[in-house]
Amino acid sequence: MTEPSLTGVLAPVITPFTAALAPDQDRFNRHCAWLLASGCAGLAVFGTNSEANSLGLDERKALLEGLVASGVDPARLIPGTGCCALPETVALSAHATALGCAGVLMLPPFYYKGVPDEGLFRSYSEVIQRVGDARLRIYIYHIPPVSGVPVPVPVVERLLKAYPGTIAGVKDSSGDWANTEALLALAPQGLSVFAGSEVFLLRNMRGGGAGCITAGANVNPAAIDQVFRRWRDPEAPALQAGIDRIRAILQAHGSMIPALKAVTAHFGQDPAWKTVRPPLVELDEGDEQALLEDLREAGFAMPGLSMP
Amino acid sequence: MTEPSLTGVLAPVITPFTAALAPDQDRFNRHCAWLLASGCAGLAVFGTNSEANSLGLDERKALLEGLVASGVDPARLIPGTGCCALPETVALSAHATALGCAGVLMLPPFYYKGVPDEGLFRSYSEVIQRVGDARLRIYIYHIPPVSGVPVPVPVVERLLKAYPGTIAGVKDSSGDWANTEALLALAPQGLSVFAGSEVFLLRNMRGGGAGCITAGANVNPAAIDQVFRRWRDPEAPALQAGIDRIRAILQAHGSMIPALKAVTAHFGQDPAWKTVRPPLVELDEGDEQALLEDLREAGFAMPGLSMP
Repeated sequence: MTEPSLTGVLAPVITPFTAALAPDQDRFNRHCAWLLASGCAGLAVFGTNSEANSLGLDERKALLEGLVASGVDPARLIPGTGCCALPETVALSAHATALGCAGVLMLPPFYYKGVPDEGLFRSYSEVIQRVGDARLRIYIYHIPPVSGVPVPVPVVERLLKAYPGTIAGVKDSSGDWANTEALLALAPQGLSVFAGSEVFLLRNMRGGGAGCITAGANVNPAAIDQVFRRWRDPEAPALQAGIDRIRAILQAHGSMIPALKAVTAHFGQDPAWKTVRPPLVELDEGDEQALLEDLREAGFAMPGLSMP
Repeated sequence: MTEPSLTGVLAPVITPFTAALAPDQDRFNRHCAWLLASGCAGLAVFGTNSEANSLGLDERKALLEGLVASGVDPARLIPGTGCCALPETVALSAHATALGCAGVLMLPPFYYKGVPDEGLFRSYSEVIQRVGDARLRIYIYHIPPVSGVPVPVPVVERLLKAYPGTIAGVKDSSGDWANTEALLALAPQGLSVFAGSEVFLLRNMRGGGAGCITAGANVNPAAIDQVFRRWRDPEAPALQAGIDRIRAILQAHGSMIPALKAVTAHFGQDPAWKTVRPPLVELDEGDEQALLEDLREAGFAMPGLSMP
């Protein structure tokens, strides 16, 4: 494979909804444009923090088409396409590939738990064969705390050997650094390893990783990008400590997705951003105020964030 | 609500696949007909044991339409319709209701874990409002070991109060009898409580439950139906012990879905039944032989099972 792979900081872009809970294409496009102008190398739209699993297939396809139509280069996009059902993962992956996306971020089928490694291998393998497009690039998405279905390193390795070039990378959101280290051992074989949180970014770069795909990049992309760009510099640990501090605040009050939306609503002066789809619930007033107060104290800002 | 509700033994019907992994309408219809002729009061098609979460929306709709077209009375059907994404749960529930199904078996959105009770309530509430059909009957599906998202009893109770008549029942596959007991306390308010395994059937009937929706009914419907019909009789505990014994064998060798398919393949002399969709994997030869041997020793049979 000769095309340059995507490296750096990618945001699993939060998805705005209208009051009627429909995806809001306009706000989505504007947030994506801001992220790309603010330090994100690419966008992992339809990740966990995008509430992607609360979106229907048609909604995902329409949002992606609308985003590309807005002028975003699909070569900077790695949309999430992993569903429970094989034909749906195939449909979304084929759609994203045909649009020219850099790759797809693929959860394993996540309803049935405790499935054998052979079943996980077959799942990815069937998708690759059914999409049948040499342009397909898969980033395997390992996030057992949410999906309940880990993709063990030996499965990643087997897939990488069976489909070199097509298996392009992995996002490790296990929170388990030992697992990321085991994946980094596969980097020389062509696996781009993305940390699933910015708190592992410096360690991941030192270990030969490709960057991070992280919730925090939705609101703090420039500072995270600085760690990526300057990881070899003496000030890197201090920069890492700075993004760790913001990450800790984002995690301290209620749950992450409503927190990211509350922060975006506040700094963008656009309360519509607070809307989440069930089963999520927006932050309560107390959590929201505490979150914003902690961020103000930390000197946090989102410069240039577009207002409605 | 004046229509009689469904009671008795329901099977979460296993879904046959062709060698190309497409749903096999013909075998599906024949297995459904056999189940209804063999003791099942109804069919919870597209349950967990149906590999429903490995089926696409279009596949589920087509299979259901094909089943009704084959002559099965939709008043005996409670298809599973709960997806991760609100619009998809709405689409499947509206489709099943329009077809005249007795109700729908509805998982909560199951990707995001640890969601608040309020978010679960809103999820079901939004579906009810969006389907907007007075004929809708929801059976809430509580299966935390697989879904990872419990529906706590207070959420069931709140929904029952908010939507009496529409919230028709619950399937409790927690394996936690104390939870079933708490649900049975709501039976007088109009909640049909189905045990999620036949091992709880006698206890559930004694507690005022409506029956069971159980994997085991795919292969052992007549014996399970006997416990349902004769639960007040002195021989009920012995009948219960008999179905417990078969259930234990079904669970003892590999995992349940491939085991049910292997048993159906064997007794129907139809090896095509063994096919599962990834991420599941068929039983290995050793497990299959041990399973069949144990069943033969137990005198198990599937009388009248149609052959291809």
